[in-house]
Amino acid sequence: MNFKPTFLDVDTSYPIVFLNFEDAQKLGIESNDQVVLKIRRMKVRSFIALTKKLVNKGSVGVGNYLRKRYSFEENLLNIARAKSAKSFNYIRKKMQGGKLSYTELREVIQDAVNGNLTNLEMAAFILAEEYVGMTMEEIEHLTKVMVETGETIEFNRTVYDKHSIGGVPGNKISLLIVPTIAAAGLFIPKTSSKAITSPSGTADTMSVLAPVEFTPEEFKEVALKAGGAIVWGGRLGLAPADDIFIREVERPLRVDPESQMLASIFSKKLATGVNYLTLDLPVGEGAKIENRKNALELAHKFSQLGHRLGIKVVCGITYGGQPIGRCVGPALEAKEALEALINGGKNCSTSLLEKSMSLAGLLLEVSGKSRRGYGKDLAYEIFRKGRAYLKMKEIIEAQGGDPDIKPEDLPVGQHKAVLKSPIDGYIKKVDNEKINEIARKAGAPKERGAGLVIYGKQGHKVKKGEPILEIFAERTTKLNDAYELALTLKPIAIEGMLLDIFPEITT
Amino acid sequence: MNFKPTFLDVDTSYPIVFLNFEDAQKLGIESNDQVVLKIRRMKVRSFIALTKKLVNKGSVGVGNYLRKRYSFEENLLNIARAKSAKSFNYIRKKMQGGKLSYTELREVIQDAVNGNLTNLEMAAFILAEEYVGMTMEEIEHLTKVMVETGETIEFNRTVYDKHSIGGVPGNKISLLIVPTIAAAGLFIPKTSSKAITSPSGTADTMSVLAPVEFTPEEFKEVALKAGGAIVWGGRLGLAPADDIFIREVERPLRVDPESQMLASIFSKKLATGVNYLTLDLPVGEGAKIENRKNALELAHKFSQLGHRLGIKVVCGITYGGQPIGRCVGPALEAKEALEALINGGKNCSTSLLEKSMSLAGLLLEVSGKSRRGYGKDLAYEIFRKGRAYLKMKEIIEAQGGDPDIKPEDLPVGQHKAVLKSPIDGYIKKVDNEKINEIARKAGAPKERGAGLVIYGKQGHKVKKGEPILEIFAERTTKLNDAYELALTLKPIAIEGMLLDIFPEITT
Repeated sequence: MNFKPTFLDVDTSYPIVFLNFEDAQKLGIESNDQVVLKIRRMKVRSFIALTKKLVNKGSVGVGNYLRKRYSFEENLLNIARAKSAKSFNYIRKKMQGGKLSYTELREVIQDAVNGNLTNLEMAAFILAEEYVGMTMEEIEHLTKVMVETGETIEFNRTVYDKHSIGGVPGNKISLLIVPTIAAAGLFIPKTSSKAITSPSGTADTMSVLAPVEFTPEEFKEVALKAGGAIVWGGRLGLAPADDIFIREVERPLRVDPESQMLASIFSKKLATGVNYLTLDLPVGEGAKIENRKNALELAHKFSQLGHRLGIKVVCGITYGGQPIGRCVGPALEAKEALEALINGGKNCSTSLLEKSMSLAGLLLEVSGKSRRGYGKDLAYEIFRKGRAYLKMKEIIEAQGGDPDIKPEDLPVGQHKAVLKSPIDGYIKKVDNEKINEIARKAGAPKERGAGLVIYGKQGHKVKKGEPILEIFAERTTKLNDAYELALTLKPIAIEGMLLDIFPEITT
Repeated sequence: MNFKPTFLDVDTSYPIVFLNFEDAQKLGIESNDQVVLKIRRMKVRSFIALTKKLVNKGSVGVGNYLRKRYSFEENLLNIARAKSAKSFNYIRKKMQGGKLSYTELREVIQDAVNGNLTNLEMAAFILAEEYVGMTMEEIEHLTKVMVETGETIEFNRTVYDKHSIGGVPGNKISLLIVPTIAAAGLFIPKTSSKAITSPSGTADTMSVLAPVEFTPEEFKEVALKAGGAIVWGGRLGLAPADDIFIREVERPLRVDPESQMLASIFSKKLATGVNYLTLDLPVGEGAKIENRKNALELAHKFSQLGHRLGIKVVCGITYGGQPIGRCVGPALEAKEALEALINGGKNCSTSLLEKSMSLAGLLLEVSGKSRRGYGKDLAYEIFRKGRAYLKMKEIIEAQGGDPDIKPEDLPVGQHKAVLKSPIDGYIKKVDNEKINEIARKAGAPKERGAGLVIYGKQGHKVKKGEPILEIFAERTTKLNDAYELALTLKPIAIEGMLLDIFPEITT
């Protein structure tokens, strides 16, 4: 049934619509129901409030939450009662240790996308994945049904892609890899995500240089024009179940079951028709993978799943025990990447350049652009000669940005504070998690200019009083908070420094 | 901060309050927060909506959900921002396989009671219990902290109690056991629950005979007066975390982890100072426990936990493969129990009387009222002589009911339908789950008069055309639905009856 939206002066953190009692009765909706709103191609599960006077018959009261997120141009909003999902029985089957078929998984995912599962039921599904696990066959089916329940984009070209499983701060390597690959003549239309728990996702960093939000049609046009792109995947509607699970369960509970991670990555790739994929698996303390044995096991699963889905996957296991490059936070990372591109890698941090060129090299090798073992050399050649920078300018322009943007134009935070080494010594460790926490406290990723510059990495010699970390913020209060936190957390440990004191036992 | 409640014409299925923007700012509340309302001694986590015009400064808009459930007599409502709970880190520790200390469990439970955990976070806790499990030490601590975070009642007497873990329809045995024990001079102030997934909980059945809702003070007075009571535990505030978990997680997800079940039962007992407890563990197809081995293991855990908590527990493993007695549904079960009491057990179904007297006997033995092995005989003597009925009249009167209430006064549903045996044969099985489903379809427990009468149990001989099941309902639509369902489900299987037909393989 369609209703005329009237906007109500009501601010909530969740979707809610106000329905007139009589309309609700006609629809068979009671106050303990939820409803599904159809807004263009999307379905949104919403809370309801029934009212006799606040909203007239035929109208529906819409608050700021929905108004801000969706367009109500068409002037009519379709509302139906959210059904109690039969597929919850399949979720229960998985909870009890069962194996789900393609059809069963399809119903679960369809119900999630259609707004027929509550957040609690979705949590039960994700936690059953965590504790019961899934077979490779289930993961293959899960990936496929996640693709089938969303948008897909057909480029009619061989598609290359790069993906990092994340977890390491400062990981702006896509901004170096994508233009390098595209400059070699390979088509690489990269979708990326915004930060969930990190100080900057690839989409956040890229958004400093050019717009990243597109419809599927616009994305296709942009990517084909420049031979590559770096856009935000969030509004494309690819594998929407994934976004729903992240928003409703994985982020609030801080869980990310392996099967869901595999299906999440591959569903996005499958939806854009990726043929060749290089996967970055960072390993080390504070990264998502703690040791090489686990990394190899995971790499094996990625290859297997890729094989089942017709995607050629080459995994690069990389060192992820400390941040990549020197900068953390959207504008600072964009600046670091842009400088590297303009300078052809001169003065670029080794960790950033070497990692980017190694992973780009893997793609150049599987594509046949380079002989085995020579991919990295080719990548370096492209990058050093400035061909990657020229391609990046094309990409920025195609996405609607200024191709002549300069590093010094980028809006880094104007409030700064420096931490200095308290002693002469060597840097023993730069802690990923602490760096993340401090950068977020400074305001990243929401405040684009907030972030950190790390002046020394593991093994570097430092003198007493030398700067080791600089904090950038857009607001003084956040600068102070981040500075306080840095003093407490000591994210950069220096050999010979007293880190903690254990009091003596006195009894 | 305190606000003046104004009632809004808004019906929701969850607690929501409408706050003026400026008041919210003063309280540091943003639209993505939730709030905790302090209503007398209870704390209720509530959604919020911020508004500029709907509600004036100093007022808070309260909808029908809260208005119906809580009294706002005091005319001021205290509202605070719900904090993000530090104890979620302990939940995460349990999710990752860790063991929780007393202090950690105490924080988790305190946060649940104070409204500081979201339903998702509570689901994570309950599902971690399900999948990771808890040691007996953790369960002991969990039980204790659940008691400490709620009301307790001190009777200053030796307290006896009876508890059934449930799952079998028609289980009105408390209405026979409690007056029998009390008639023997043992103090048995029983708290009971309303149905969650069954057609009638003990509190539902008892409510047909007398009021069951009391404050802790009233409950104490009532129980001491009659030497026993059967009241609803839901409004007493004993171990409130348990009620919250059931409402927010266990009922919607249909989960009941063993550790939570143990803690739930014992926390309610500990909160009323129970010293001796007889536990009914029904075993059989369609009961909560499938076989005797599992029942013995569980009985061992109950005894162990009782020992740790200072409660003497005697477990009775009973046959739970089919319904207890003949009647299912609040009024019908109350009628069956009252008839048994009045008639001193004459004409009472063997399954009901024998089970009740056996369990009562166990309590009489542990109390020393009877020698070992003679408890059941003593229970039968008390019951047959009508002493249990006299005591029940006292209990009904003390709770505010009419002690002279007669079975024929009870409001059983006026719409009836009978199912007849289609053949001559023997009853092979009466299916618990199907009986539950049909009785609920008829309207039980909400409609007190709805339910079933079962005319034959396992092993009984039936003739073609003889009634085997009668359905009672308060509304014809529900009667029809239940009748249709009964025809489909065939809850009573008769030997020689064709139950299902498997089609032949034709390929």
